[in-house]
Amino acid sequence: MSTLRELALLVDGEVVGDPNVEITGVAEIHNASTGSISFLLHKKNQSYLESTKASAVVVSKSESSGNTNLLKVENPSLAFIHILEHFSPEISAEEGIHPTALIDPESKIGKDVAIGAFAVISSGSDIGSGVSIGSHVIIESGAVIGEGSKIGGGVIVGHNCEVGSDTIIQGGTVIGSHGFGFTTEKDEHHRIPQLGRAVLGDNVEIGANCAIDRGTLTDTVIGDGTKLDNLVHIAHNVKIGKGCLITAHVAIAGSTVVGDYVAFGGQSGATDHVEIGDRARIASRGGITKSVPGGKTYSGMPAREAMEQNKLDAYINRLPELVKRVQALEQKLENRKGKK
Amino acid sequence: MSTLRELALLVDGEVVGDPNVEITGVAEIHNASTGSISFLLHKKNQSYLESTKASAVVVSKSESSGNTNLLKVENPSLAFIHILEHFSPEISAEEGIHPTALIDPESKIGKDVAIGAFAVISSGSDIGSGVSIGSHVIIESGAVIGEGSKIGGGVIVGHNCEVGSDTIIQGGTVIGSHGFGFTTEKDEHHRIPQLGRAVLGDNVEIGANCAIDRGTLTDTVIGDGTKLDNLVHIAHNVKIGKGCLITAHVAIAGSTVVGDYVAFGGQSGATDHVEIGDRARIASRGGITKSVPGGKTYSGMPAREAMEQNKLDAYINRLPELVKRVQALEQKLENRKGKK
Amino acid sequence: MSTLRELALLVDGEVVGDPNVEITGVAEIHNASTGSISFLLHKKNQSYLESTKASAVVVSKSESSGNTNLLKVENPSLAFIHILEHFSPEISAEEGIHPTALIDPESKIGKDVAIGAFAVISSGSDIGSGVSIGSHVIIESGAVIGEGSKIGGGVIVGHNCEVGSDTIIQGGTVIGSHGFGFTTEKDEHHRIPQLGRAVLGDNVEIGANCAIDRGTLTDTVIGDGTKLDNLVHIAHNVKIGKGCLITAHVAIAGSTVVGDYVAFGGQSGATDHVEIGDRARIASRGGITKSVPGGKTYSGMPAREAMEQNKLDAYINRLPELVKRVQALEQKLENRKGKK
Repeated sequence: MSTLRELALLVDGEVVGDPNVEITGVAEIHNASTGSISFLLHKKNQSYLESTKASAVVVSKSESSGNTNLLKVENPSLAFIHILEHFSPEISAEEGIHPTALIDPESKIGKDVAIGAFAVISSGSDIGSGVSIGSHVIIESGAVIGEGSKIGGGVIVGHNCEVGSDTIIQGGTVIGSHGFGFTTEKDEHHRIPQLGRAVLGDNVEIGANCAIDRGTLTDTVIGDGTKLDNLVHIAHNVKIGKGCLITAHVAIAGSTVVGDYVAFGGQSGATDHVEIGDRARIASRGGITKSVPGGKTYSGMPAREAMEQNKLDAYINRLPELVKRVQALEQKLENRKGKK
Repeated sequence: MSTLRELALLVDGEVVGDPNVEITGVAEIHNASTGSISFLLHKKNQSYLESTKASAVVVSKSESSGNTNLLKVENPSLAFIHILEHFSPEISAEEGIHPTALIDPESKIGKDVAIGAFAVISSGSDIGSGVSIGSHVIIESGAVIGEGSKIGGGVIVGHNCEVGSDTIIQGGTVIGSHGFGFTTEKDEHHRIPQLGRAVLGDNVEIGANCAIDRGTLTDTVIGDGTKLDNLVHIAHNVKIGKGCLITAHVAIAGSTVVGDYVAFGGQSGATDHVEIGDRARIASRGGITKSVPGGKTYSGMPAREAMEQNKLDAYINRLPELVKRVQALEQKLENRKGKK
Repeated sequence: MSTLRELALLVDGEVVGDPNVEITGVAEIHNASTGSISFLLHKKNQSYLESTKASAVVVSKSESSGNTNLLKVENPSLAFIHILEHFSPEISAEEGIHPTALIDPESKIGKDVAIGAFAVISSGSDIGSGVSIGSHVIIESGAVIGEGSKIGGGVIVGHNCEVGSDTIIQGGTVIGSHGFGFTTEKDEHHRIPQLGRAVLGDNVEIGANCAIDRGTLTDTVIGDGTKLDNLVHIAHNVKIGKGCLITAHVAIAGSTVVGDYVAFGGQSGATDHVEIGDRARIASRGGITKSVPGGKTYSGMPAREAMEQNKLDAYINRLPELVKRVQALEQKLENRKGKK
């Protein structure tokens, strides 16, 4: 429990109303109850400022007062994160190294590392300070985990792969799987060894049950600050830039190069050996089949610029009308012919 | 081995033929051999009633006799399930609590619970009576598993998440992963804490290697009797009703609300913040991008009513013909012009 | 480190230049440095023969000399594999049976088997000679793993399932999950027992985090030499032939029969109960919705022959032009009418 005054200090905000009101948790503005704090994050919810039962609402500086206590801040979205963190339940996190974890004597373990039950830390691996490793994790030989990173339960980090600092990998994900590369000779598919690594930058997040292949000769790379949702596939040799957002079920095929701050919608993808420019946005289910410049939105399969795609869709939607117009023309010509 | 009479008792059926024939197993009607029992589940297979080598065939009450013994029942599909269960091999299921399983003393374990090797049951969790937990499962702190549920190998049930009674979760699935929610400020993606839970109802089934995110403020909910296939992604705050069937590779984005008895075909999906009405059916690869009423079938991406989509597809298929008609019109006008 | 002469012996090639040059690793032809060997695998890279800094380049017999030492071979792609294998780092592979692995006394373990930490080998299972099993693997009762196969970390091989010889299963994959089969009666979905197995042939490869369901009455089968990428879903009763290539995120629905040497592009799929002929190719995102003959390429959803699909796409792309032509016709007719 905290007073509104304490929360104001936390988020550098200004109270309009009673700073002594006690706040016990966070709730959505439309179904909050007394004791909770809510957030006005979208203009469309503004009317709730009058009707909400929340004991306080976090609003932007420009907001005029409503029917409850207000906490005015520069950026309500960021304040939302800080206040959520404040009210997060204490999860009994891994602490220290569980006695059932197997730590190879030839691995290097930093300070304040937590390692869960039955985890396997192989020889030559290097676990940075403050790293938290879940139960049943496998860190293969030579793998490096940067400081402060959190590795979820059952994750596999393959041999020699590298995870940056403050990076999060959620449960069940495989980093450094063997890429899907074969040379076919007389109907037999010969497996191409994959000598490269998978390398994740700092502040990366990888969702649950993803698969990130290692590279063939060079590394598969995921840049700093890039976030992946669940069940994402990244093939061998792919290079992804900084700050990308890659939603669930995306598949990026081999050797494709993705720029910085690119956004992939759900179930979208990119074929192999193409380049996608910085700040490109691929709509849900969009499929990039050739290199595209950045800064634009693409949709459809094969993907084209969304504006162009929308125009074509409009033309398709009017096809029944077009057919009627052609029928009318045919009828007119037929009639005239008949008149002659 | 059972006699046909015994199987008739099991499924409340009536034997036409020899009730003493011995049945050793179940086979498909078109490739059955002596000693097996088959099922007539589709009209198109009716001719097999004459030619099948099965020692008996389960048929509906209305069926006239074929060339083999018949077992007439009200509902052959349900009888199929009961007789399959009867002939299921005894799997050496988990029994009791394996000595390598780690059971936190502050967890609550019901009667007749089976827990596999190397499973980790954390503090504050509550495992109902008759629950079976596979090897390498992680039940995080505060998680609740209802009576009679079966948790497959390597599954993770995240902290405070709740699984109902008689629910099945298959191998490798992650329940309660952290949702893909970020607030972006100056190109930096700040992670939004997810304080909600993932809550599964009773009689739910989740396939292998799925990922079900926890909610942000409220819970992600999967209703009673809903079944998910393999590799399905359910994002944070999604609410799914009762009795839905959600096929493999489906992705449902954040905060979307799915009604009761909705069916999703393979690789289909729904965007975030939409509502899908009761008994809607989304065809394979359909992509719901806006709220849709229930009771109808949707297909395409973006999805529209399947009938409408089929009509448009027919128009598209006749585009070559339409172009020829326009050419013919142009030619006619050109000819007339020439004639003048 | 090896001399070029030694590598020539390895791949049965002929040196043009200095056979004593020392090679320390493999690099891409366009960013190689001294000491590395590169490969000319695509004609488009031929100009690099002049500019590469590689100490040697592997080329086909027909190649004339460039600016560096050449190693001429019959098939540079196969030589690429052999030389990559030669330079592969020694991975500290599993050796012997880890003391924490649980081996049921009623299982059968061949010679020279490696079993990782915390693996669970159940009763009645049969592990062939030379098999390598990763950490945290679960081999359920009665499962068979053929000689020389490699099972990645955290993999589950379900009860009675069968894996052939020299087959590779990557981390996190579930073999023999319970198929998505229900009989719906009054809105209740009754689970159909799945008595069949999942059976993988020899030289098969399954990527990371896949799910291969067991069959209902017969087996789900994946033929010899077939390769699956990551996150692939194969439903119950599916039969896949020999030598297929199935890329990431593919979903093949129940009872579908896939011929030999079929190729599925990324995120493509097939509906249930269809047949796909030998050597069919399904383009990325293609969705097979009815049986199709082999030897052809299919694309789109629903998929049709790619040539036909490409033609339709061209017609769609020219829709704006077609609408203008119809407008012009309407205008002409209107003008003439006006003239009269």
